[in-house]
Order: sequence, then structure tokens, then C-alpha cells
Amino acid sequence: KINGERLWDSLMEMAQIGPGVAGGNNRQTVTDEDAEGRALFQKWCEAAGCSMGLDQMGNMFARREGSDPDALPVYVGSHLDTQPTGGKYDGVLGVLGGLEIIRSLNDMGIKTRHPIVVTNWTNEEGTRFAPAMLSSGVFAGVHTQDWAYAREDAEGLKFGDELARIGWRGKEEVGARKMHAMFELHIEQGPILEAEGKEIGVVTHGQGLSWTQVTIVGKDSHTGSTPMPMRKNAGLGMARVLEQVEAIALSHAPHAVGAAGHIDVFPNSRNVIPGKAVFTVDFRSPDLSVIEDMEARLRIEAQKICDDMGLGVEFEKVGGFDPVTFDETCVAAVRNAAERLGYSHMNLISGAGHDACWINRVAPTAMVMCPCVDGLSHNEAEEISPEWAAAGANVLFHAVVETAEI
Amino acid sequence: KINGERLWDSLMEMAQIGPGVAGGNNRQTVTDEDAEGRALFQKWCEAAGCSMGLDQMGNMFARREGSDPDALPVYVGSHLDTQPTGGKYDGVLGVLGGLEIIRSLNDMGIKTRHPIVVTNWTNEEGTRFAPAMLSSGVFAGVHTQDWAYAREDAEGLKFGDELARIGWRGKEEVGARKMHAMFELHIEQGPILEAEGKEIGVVTHGQGLSWTQVTIVGKDSHTGSTPMPMRKNAGLGMARVLEQVEAIALSHAPHAVGAAGHIDVFPNSRNVIPGKAVFTVDFRSPDLSVIEDMEARLRIEAQKICDDMGLGVEFEKVGGFDPVTFDETCVAAVRNAAERLGYSHMNLISGAGHDACWINRVAPTAMVMCPCVDGLSHNEAEEISPEWAAAGANVLFHAVVETAEI
Ligand SMILES: NC(=O)NCCC(=O)O
Ligand SMILES: NC(=O)NCCC(=O)O
Repeated sequence: KINGERLWDSLMEMAQIGPGVAGGNNRQTVTDEDAEGRALFQKWCEAAGCSMGLDQMGNMFARREGSDPDALPVYVGSHLDTQPTGGKYDGVLGVLGGLEIIRSLNDMGIKTRHPIVVTNWTNEEGTRFAPAMLSSGVFAGVHTQDWAYAREDAEGLKFGDELARIGWRGKEEVGARKMHAMFELHIEQGPILEAEGKEIGVVTHGQGLSWTQVTIVGKDSHTGSTPMPMRKNAGLGMARVLEQVEAIALSHAPHAVGAAGHIDVFPNSRNVIPGKAVFTVDFRSPDLSVIEDMEARLRIEAQKICDDMGLGVEFEKVGGFDPVTFDETCVAAVRNAAERLGYSHMNLISGAGHDACWINRVAPTAMVMCPCVDGLSHNEAEEISPEWAAAGANVLFHAVVETAEI
Repeated sequence: KINGERLWDSLMEMAQIGPGVAGGNNRQTVTDEDAEGRALFQKWCEAAGCSMGLDQMGNMFARREGSDPDALPVYVGSHLDTQPTGGKYDGVLGVLGGLEIIRSLNDMGIKTRHPIVVTNWTNEEGTRFAPAMLSSGVFAGVHTQDWAYAREDAEGLKFGDELARIGWRGKEEVGARKMHAMFELHIEQGPILEAEGKEIGVVTHGQGLSWTQVTIVGKDSHTGSTPMPMRKNAGLGMARVLEQVEAIALSHAPHAVGAAGHIDVFPNSRNVIPGKAVFTVDFRSPDLSVIEDMEARLRIEAQKICDDMGLGVEFEKVGGFDPVTFDETCVAAVRNAAERLGYSHMNLISGAGHDACWINRVAPTAMVMCPCVDGLSHNEAEEISPEWAAAGANVLFHAVVETAEI
């Protein structure tokens, strides 16, 4: 078993970097806080005897050698970046859980046949730069690196420039590494495990996602002196589209969810009718045809609403991935580990996207999940217990070591 | 008649300060650009032989002496601050139209019995610091100066501190001045004059306003992994309230308008269900009972919507003024001037709030309006013709000089 106390201490130490405003974290991707978090992780990895790799997307690779020079490494990891008002465990548990495997193997003096590489994937959250899982996506060949470098944040800063600015843009070609397998431990970010009283989620699938950025164009004019019939209120158009987003998602319940988390109106002045509204609709389902249906209906309904109101509307797909089926052998390794260790467990479909979803395209991949309190995540109040963290890391440890072979 | 070309040249020169992004202006109140605009206005006033006054709210007073040392001054003016994406004429025409009166009287060598004072009222727009017409409100005794100083912008900066920072916080007690009368020239900011083919609006009334800031509190959580029935989506609650704002305003049409120009959701991340939405509802009507009805219904409907969705909701009145009836004698002076000069004219109710609405409480006051293209204002594309500007300034000139007596 891994050392649960050491894992928890490391989680708490990482949470000191980029503190939030309500007990969580704001350590958004390629910020100064991200750089500080990376440096701490690297220090810990080097202390555990790892050699470090850094690719051109800022993905970090901490390697512990195996006994067989010809064996491909088993990868394990997740992400250190957080939401602007994020929790202390989302992503971090998977990275530090990977590090804890190496520390534990060191303690036990065990050498695996395959090397083990712990990764920190850059910009998993996708808040500052859409889409989410940007760098694992480039690694898996889903996006080109040039396209990724050109992603802009709300201030117009480019991802590639910001990565260089914080000093974590490496030289290694992205995606050149070959993997024997990849495992990711993550908190569930949903309520199922806790409700079912299970300690471990064996993730068999991931639901797919579609992010459509909608731009509604009206005409900014005076809220007091523009007569009602002359208004082209982009904010009101947006309100009507948001109601449709809810209706479309509910029409597929419980096999779909939908909401808009990102909403901006312009010029955002109390006495100016919004001339422009920009918002991103997030639809998800484990069923690709459902996602496609929701996406298509959003465009039709929004177009209808805007036509009726004399508003312009444009759609841009700013993120998306198809539903994922994880590798059977890797999934079995996770289930066997849970079984062997005597943890209660159940199969799960991941509601969120993960780096593992992209890596699954280029290597056999699986995920381990542990519960989180009230299913709450993407909130500074996100919470897990040290016991849940240790159980997840133990399952990860056994699955990885079984796959890496002693 | 005034010198229309000189007036237009000054308008164009002022528009160089704080240029917008689309041909208009961003010279928001108590910014560095505001300070620059004030300095230019002061330079022009001094060149026209005026003595300058500056009160503790930053209100500027350029005085041309009269022949009777006991006669109270006739005031004339408006505001130099703009919306973040504002036009070149909203407010500015009224200030520089006042200056043009003084320049023209100088040209003509006319001395009035009453002094004439041209004013620039601070923070008329109310965008950066709510409410609108803040400093004329303090002048008229509607707000205390301490309260006004404590108003905060979106970054938490205080109005009083920012006024001092830009160097335009004067020593003169606010509201100590006594006025013989006050006149304000302004663009209509609505479509009526142009549609009716009239050159001059004789403003008899101003409609009242109510600004209610609504804060809806839900729970920020993951857009992908939070099941639909567990969501507390503050953004969706806001959308439903915005639909009600429209319905409430339309129920009083054509005697009322309503919209929300200011909308913020938190944490505003694509994959986080909004845990908080803050927006300001702007309701207006020439009829006080209609405003009160709309305000009350907003609170009832929003409470109902939020209760149904398990959301919290709070209301704060962040601005408001009752409908205004301008002074009969001053209104007649405006009408007579238009008549005498041969301009087509009609009575108007101002759709927007103006400094004149507050000053009307402490001195006989009236307003002159000129048309603007398509009724468009609070938009960088706001446009008027030099002829309209000159006609408005001529009527202002005659009304002011008649009231100030030769
Ligand atoms: N795990 C996680 O929150 N990833 C971000 C991408 C998503 O929104 O699912
Ligand atoms: N004239 C003008 O736009 N004033 C700002 C206050 C208002 O919104 O009416």
C-alpha cells in the first residue's frame, strides 16, 4: 500500500500555491502560479530520483527507470492546473497519486520491468484557453501544436506565448513518446459513488462533450430612450437561447446534460441595451448521436429565436470530444486491483472530460475514480477524505505496478 | 446666432480625447481621459475670459460676469463623461454648446445682466459608478457627498478616491451655489424628432427610472458531471428573470421600457455551472406608479422563479429618480427661442435621465433637444449633423440670453 499520509501532506502543500478566495485554488494554466506548482512538483520528482522531460506543450514527464531497457513505460498522471475557483483535488490527486507510486516503490525497493512516467498535462481545465485537455489533445494528434499555440484567453494573450513567458515551454516533440499503457486517478466530480456508498469507481467509459460558442449580435442603444419595438436586445436573445439549452438537455434526460457557464454581454453597462452577447453552451452525453442532436437543435432554435428578434447569430465549435470506451485490459487491471485490496467498487461513466480520454486514442488507457463530497467539483468547496484519496491511490498503485510488471 | 463651425470644431477636438474602438469615445468618469477632457475644457473657458470654479464632487463652473453684481447666474451645461462605448455628442454637446454661448457673447460684445456659468457635471453616465447623474444629485441634495464618495466601480475603487487621484477634487462646497435658472442642451438619444422631422425638442418632462441590481445565488459545480436535477444554475435563473423583465415592460407599453444592460455570471468558466449571477434591471416610465408597479413585479416574479429553482435572490436599488416636470417659464423660453429662430419644434418627454432632472429640484430648469441619427445613442456610432448641433445651440443661446437679460 502507498503512504496515504504522505500523499495527503503533498496535496495540502500543493494547495498552498495559487490559493483561492474560499479555501480552494486559483492556479489557472500557464500563469505564474502554475509555474510555481510545476517547480514544486519537479523538485519532488527529482528528490524521488526521477529524470524530467518537458515537451513543447509544457507537458511534464517524471521518469523512474525499469529493469528492461526495451520495455515501453507505463504512464500515470493528470493535471495540476485548476479552475479560477477550483478545488484542491481536481487533477492534483492524479498527479500526486502518480508521484506517490514512485515514492512507495522507492520505499519498498521494488524495480518494475517497465519504466513508470508520471505526467502533468498542461491546460486540462480549458477555462483560460478553450478547449479543455488541450495538451493531451496535441499529444494524441487531435490538435496541431500551431493551432494550440494560437488559442487566446479573454485578454487576447496566446497560449504559446504565455507558456514561454512562464518558462515551461520545452524542446521535446509533442506526442513522440510511445506508451505501454496510461492510467489516470481522478475525483469523480459527481455524486454517484458517494450515493452508492462505493470507495472506487472503475471507469469504463467517458461521456462526450460539445462546446458551442454562440455570439448574438443586436444593437447597443440607450436603455431609456430606445422604444421597445426598436430594440435589438442581444441579452434578451441570449436569455431565450439559455432556456432552450435547458429544454434540449432535459429532453434527453437522464442521458444528457447541458448548461452555459461562460456568459459575457457587451458593452455591459447598466444603461446600454446589450449589443452583443457571447456565451458557450456545454452539452454532454455518453451517446454521440445525442450530442449531435443537441448541437443541431441548439443551432436551429437559436437561429429561430434570433431571426424572430431581428438579431444576428453565429456559432463556433470551441471544444468537443466523442464518447470514450476505455481499454478492456487496463479497466480490468483497475477492477482487479480494487477487488484484491478489498475496496467496494462499481463501474462508472465519467461525466467530465479527462486527459485519459485523449490518451486512450494512442495507448491502452483506464481511469480510477474516488468519491467527492456531495459530488461537488469546480467549486472551491470541493472536498474528499484522506481515506478516499488513499484508496484511489492504492488502486492506482496496484493497477500500474501490475501493468508495469515486477 | 452662435458660430456653428466653431462649435463643431470643438466637438471634434474633444472627441480626440479618450477615443473608442469604433469611431466614438471611451472617456469614462474620473479616468485619466476624463482629466484630459476637463483640462481642455478649462483651457477653452479661460481663453474665453471665464473664471473657473471646482467643487468637491469635481463639478466644473466657468463663469462669465454679468452687469448686475446682485443677479444670480444663469447656469447652462451638461457632462463630458461618456459610456465605455459612447458617442461624441451625448453630454458633450451640452457643455460645449454652453461654452459657445459665451464665445458668441464675447464676439458680439454683449454683456448680460445675470452672470452665465457653464457647467460640466461629474459622472452623469453612471456606468463606472452607479447611479447616473451622481454629482448633480449631490448638488441638488438628493445624495450625501459621503455616500457618493463611497460608490465603488467593478474593481472596488471608490469614486471619491478616483476623483482625487485624477486631480479634479475641488474645495468648493457642493450645492452652495444659488441659480437663477438652468438650461441643458442634449441630443435626444431617441428616434422621435427625426421621425417627426423636427429640428428642436422642447423638453417638458423627463421619465423616471429605477435600477434594481439582482443577485441570484446558486451553486457552482461541474457542467459535465453534475446531474440535471442536482443543478442550482444561477445563469438559468437569470435567463428566466430577463424574460420577465421584458414581459413586465411590455405590459405597460408604450408607457414604459425595461432591459438589463449589466450582466455578470460567476465564476464565468465554460465548464462551471454559474453559482452566481448579478445583473441590473433598468425600468423607466413617465408615470411614477408604473415604475413602482414594474419594480414590485420584478421582485415578486424573480422571487418566484428562484424559489422554484432552489436559488437564492437578493435585490438592491442602485439608482432611481422620479418623473420630472420642468419649469414652465424656462420651457416657454426654449419654445419661444425655437419659434423666434424659425425652427420646427415639438414637445418631448426625455427618455433618458439628465443632470437637468436633478437641478430642476433646486432651480427653474428646462432642456433643449436636437435629433440624432436613427435615435441611436450609447453606441459609438451615435451621430448628429452640424446643422442639428447649431440649431440646438442657437435655441439654447436665445433661451439663456433671454433669461439672463441683456
Ligand atoms: N475533469 C475536468 O473537469 N476536466 C475539464 C474538462 C471538462 O469540463 O470536463
Ligand atoms: N443621458 C444619459 O444617457 N444619461 C445617463 C442616465 C440614463 O441612463 O438615462
